[in-house]
Amino acid sequence: MAASDPIYPVILAGGQGQRLWPLSRPSRPKPFLDLTGAQSLLQQTAARVAEPQSFAAPFVICSHQHRFLVAEQLRRQQREPQRIVLEPVARSTAPAACTAALLVAARDPQALLLLLPSDHFIADETGFRLAVRRAAEVAAQGRIVTFGAQPDRPETGYGYIQSGTSLPNCEGAFEIARFVEKPDLETAKRYLAAGDFVWNSGMFLSAAGVLLEEMSRHAPEILEACKAALGGADTDSDFLRLEAQAFADQPDLSFDHAVMERTERGAVVPIDIGWSDIGTWDALYQVADKDRHGNAIQGDVVAVESRGCYLHSASVPIAALGLDGIAVVSTPEALLVCPRSRAQEIAKVIRALEARADGTTATPLDQDRRSEDNRRA
Amino acid sequence: MAASDPIYPVILAGGQGQRLWPLSRPSRPKPFLDLTGAQSLLQQTAARVAEPQSFAAPFVICSHQHRFLVAEQLRRQQREPQRIVLEPVARSTAPAACTAALLVAARDPQALLLLLPSDHFIADETGFRLAVRRAAEVAAQGRIVTFGAQPDRPETGYGYIQSGTSLPNCEGAFEIARFVEKPDLETAKRYLAAGDFVWNSGMFLSAAGVLLEEMSRHAPEILEACKAALGGADTDSDFLRLEAQAFADQPDLSFDHAVMERTERGAVVPIDIGWSDIGTWDALYQVADKDRHGNAIQGDVVAVESRGCYLHSASVPIAALGLDGIAVVSTPEALLVCPRSRAQEIAKVIRALEARADGTTATPLDQDRRSEDNRRA
Repeated sequence: MAASDPIYPVILAGGQGQRLWPLSRPSRPKPFLDLTGAQSLLQQTAARVAEPQSFAAPFVICSHQHRFLVAEQLRRQQREPQRIVLEPVARSTAPAACTAALLVAARDPQALLLLLPSDHFIADETGFRLAVRRAAEVAAQGRIVTFGAQPDRPETGYGYIQSGTSLPNCEGAFEIARFVEKPDLETAKRYLAAGDFVWNSGMFLSAAGVLLEEMSRHAPEILEACKAALGGADTDSDFLRLEAQAFADQPDLSFDHAVMERTERGAVVPIDIGWSDIGTWDALYQVADKDRHGNAIQGDVVAVESRGCYLHSASVPIAALGLDGIAVVSTPEALLVCPRSRAQEIAKVIRALEARADGTTATPLDQDRRSEDNRRA
Repeated sequence: MAASDPIYPVILAGGQGQRLWPLSRPSRPKPFLDLTGAQSLLQQTAARVAEPQSFAAPFVICSHQHRFLVAEQLRRQQREPQRIVLEPVARSTAPAACTAALLVAARDPQALLLLLPSDHFIADETGFRLAVRRAAEVAAQGRIVTFGAQPDRPETGYGYIQSGTSLPNCEGAFEIARFVEKPDLETAKRYLAAGDFVWNSGMFLSAAGVLLEEMSRHAPEILEACKAALGGADTDSDFLRLEAQAFADQPDLSFDHAVMERTERGAVVPIDIGWSDIGTWDALYQVADKDRHGNAIQGDVVAVESRGCYLHSASVPIAALGLDGIAVVSTPEALLVCPRSRAQEIAKVIRALEARADGTTATPLDQDRRSEDNRRA
C-alpha cells in the first residue's frame, strides 16, 4: 500500500447497550442518539473519517433492525457509505471485523481498514487524525494497531492495555504487553500510577490481509463463517444482508478475545485526544459543556441553585431545585434520577424494571421488545 | 339552634396555589388532585361532612373556571351539593365566607356554618367530627370558632394562634389571645416550647347571623358587596353565578384579616387530628404511607437503593437509583426534582420558568395561562 492510499473506515454500529437507559433503548441504541451535540454519535464517527484524501467511504456494520436509522442518519450527512452490512443476529466485534476485512481484501489485501465503534466520543478530532496517520505507518509494517487512551483517572469501567517496548522505527507505537479486563479501584490506581497502562479504546487499524491472516490463525471458525455469510449474502441497492444461518453459526467473540489477545502482530498507539466511550451518564457529564455551576444541561431544563448535575430532557421541561451531583434523564417513555456517582449501577434499575413486569404492567423495556417482536413477526 | 340541627358545610374551593407544581396548575389546582388516595382533596373534604345526622348538604364556592371539575367530582361521589357558588374573579376567603353566611342566614340566621378549605388533609376523621361537635357548642353561644392544630414541630410554613384563657362552660375551647403570621424558625421553636400556640387551620364554625354581625362591624364593605353580588346573581340548575362587578368591587381580604383578628367573639378549639394543609411536597410526604425504606411512592415508580424519597409519577415510569430524601414529581407537562427539605422553595422554580419565557419558549405556566385566556376570549 502506498502512503497516499485511502484507509477504509469500518464503523461498528451493532451494539445493543442499555447503559444510557432511558434514552438508549433496544429500538434506538446509543450510536443513534444526539448525546453531545447536534449530531448522533454515529454521525460524529462518520464525520471523523470524512476527509477524502485520507479515507474511502465507510463500511457500516449494523443490525438488520437498525438499517433505516443508519441509512437515514448517513443520508442526512450526505455521507454515501461504501456499503451498509446487515448482521442478521447480534454478534460481538470479531465477526464484524472479519466480514469487513473480507470486503476490503476483495479489493486490495494491502488496503488498511480502520475499525471504529460508532458510539464513542472524541474531543480532539485533529489529534485523532494524527494518531491514525501514525498508526497507518505501523499497520503498513504488518501490524494490527490498537489505540490506547491515556488515562487521567483510575477508571474501573474500561479494559486496559499494558504497553511493552517501543517499536523500532515507529515513534509513539509499542508492543502490547498484555490486555487486562476492567480492574477494581485499587488495581486501576496502580495502573494509573504505573504509567504504562492505557484504556482499550476498541479502535483498530490493520491491513485487511494481515487481519485475515491472524483471523485464520487464531479464529478460523469465525473466518469460515463470515466467508459463508458473505458468499450467501443478499445485496440490493441499499444493503448487504449477510446470510443468517452461516453468520449465526459461529462463536460470539470480541475482536480482542478472538485475535488481539492471541496475535504476536499487535501494537498499541497511545492517544490523548479526549476519548470516552460514554458508557454512563456520568461519562457523558464529564465530556459535556458545563454552565458556571458545573451543570451539564441538554434540552428543556431550568436549574435553580443546583450544581454538578447532569440534566437531560428529551421530553417535558425539567425543573431542578437545590440538587447537587444528581443525574436526571427524562424521555417520553421513562425518567431516571440518580446521583451521577452511581450512574454505572443502572443495570440494577433495568433488572428492577424487568422483575416487576408481571404481564399486565409492561415496563418500558418490554414495550420495546414487544414492538420488535411485532416487526419480526 | 337545637343541638340536632344540621351544620351547613361551606367548602372553599377557590384557591389558585402553585406550591404543588407541577401537579397543581392554574387549570387544575390542588383541591382537584388525587394526592393522598383514591379521592381528590375536595372529595375527601366533602366526604368528611357527609354524615346526614350532623351535616346538611354542602355549599361549595369556587372559581367560574373550575365549575365543571367541582360538579363532576361531587357527582362521582353521589354528593348533591346545596349549591355550587361561582366566584367571577378570584378572591380570598372573606368574601366567600360572607356569601355563604348570607345564603345560610336566608334560611336560618341561627344555623351553623362550617367553613372548610378544600385542599387540606386530615388523618383522624373521627377526631375531626368530635372537634366539630365540641366547637358547635361554643358556636351556639355566639362565638366564631377557629380550629387550631396542635404543633408537633417548629413549622415555619403556617400561621399560629395563641390561645388565651379557657372559655367558661366550654371544655377544650379558649379565648384567642392573638393571631401571628408565619414565624421564622427561632420564633417557631419558641411557640412550640411555649405550648399555648396552635397552627391556624383555616377552618371556622359560626352561626350565620353571628358571622354577618361581625362582618358588618369589621368589614362592612365586604358585606355590602356580597349582598349586591348575591342580589344580582344568575342562578340555574347547576350553578349560582355571583354578579361580577359587585363581587369584584370589594377588598380582597382573608377571613382572618377581615374578621377574626378584629372580633371579640372569636374562640379557638385545639385539635390533634393529623391535620396538614399539604402546602409542599414535603408536607405531602409527611402524611403519606411509606415503604420500609421510608419512600412515599405514588404512580408508576421503581425505587432502587433509595430512602426517604417522595416519588410521584402522574406520567411515565420514574426510576430512582441511590437517592436520599429527594422529591421527584413527574407529570405529562413537567418534571420537578428537589430535596424534600427544599420543597417549600418551589416559588423559585416558578419564577425561573416565568423569567425564561421569552415569547418563543413557552413555560408550562404560560401554556396554562394562555389556554385560560383563550377560554375567556
